[in-house]
Amino acid sequence: MDKHENSITDPSIKSLFENKNFAFVATSMKDGSPHVTPTWVDIEDSYILINTAIGRVKQKNVARDPRVSLSVADNNNPYHMVTVNGEIVEQITGEEAEKHIDKLAKKYLNKDKYPGRSPGEKRILLKIKPKKVVHMK
Amino acid sequence: MDKHENSITDPSIKSLFENKNFAFVATSMKDGSPHVTPTWVDIEDSYILINTAIGRVKQKNVARDPRVSLSVADNNNPYHMVTVNGEIVEQITGEEAEKHIDKLAKKYLNKDKYPGRSPGEKRILLKIKPKKVVHMK
Repeated sequence: MDKHENSITDPSIKSLFENKNFAFVATSMKDGSPHVTPTWVDIEDSYILINTAIGRVKQKNVARDPRVSLSVADNNNPYHMVTVNGEIVEQITGEEAEKHIDKLAKKYLNKDKYPGRSPGEKRILLKIKPKKVVHMK
Repeated sequence: MDKHENSITDPSIKSLFENKNFAFVATSMKDGSPHVTPTWVDIEDSYILINTAIGRVKQKNVARDPRVSLSVADNNNPYHMVTVNGEIVEQITGEEAEKHIDKLAKKYLNKDKYPGRSPGEKRILLKIKPKKVVHMK
C-alpha cells in the first residue's frame, strides 16, 4: 500500500471528502482518554468542515482542546483512505451552522432540511486546519 | 437513528466485527492529542482484537496509555455502526501475534500469509476489553 504525506486539495484526497463518505473523528476527553465518532464531513478550500450540536461529547471536547485526528475511507474501496491530524481554528454557531447541516443533509440524504434535529438543538460548524495529511491507496 | 448501549456479543454488533469492515481506532499521543488509524479488526468472546507492529505510533501510544476508542461501520450500510470505548488488557507478541495477523490476512484478503510484513517487523496483538458500547442503526 502506498502511503505518503500530502495536501487535502490533492484531487484524489479531495474526492474522499466530497463523496458521501463518513469521517471518523477523534477528540480528547477531559480525562485524557481518546473518543472517536463517525460524522458527515465537508471540504471548503483547504479546510475540513464538520457539524455537530452544542452539548455533544465531541463539541465539549474540542471546546477544551481543539486538536483532532480524523480518517476518511472510500465507501467503494476501503483501502483508499486519508488520515488528517489538525486543529479546529473556527467554531461557528447560528444561521451559518444551521444552513451548513442542511447542506450536509442534501449531500448525504438528498434532503433539503436536516431531518435529525432534536427540539432546541443548536448546531455548531467546526473548521479544521490540517497539519499532517497521510494518504493511503 | 436508533442509538443505544449494548454488548459486543449482541449478534448484530458481533457481525460488524466479523465482516470485512475496518475499525477506526483512536489512541492518545504523548502530548495528549488524539490519533486515529484505520485497522483490521477481530472479535473473540467478549474482547476486540487488533494487530499492529512494534514501533508504530498506535503501539507506542497504547504502551503508555491503554485507553482506546474505536468505531466500526458496515461496508454495506454506513448508518449501521458501533462505537466502543475500552481498554487494552493484554498485549501479546511472538508466535501468537504473528499467527493472528495471518488470520486477519485470510479474513480481509483471502491470503494465507500476511503480505505486508516489512523486514524485521514484529507484530503485536492488542486485546481490548469494551467498557462502553454504543450501537447505531
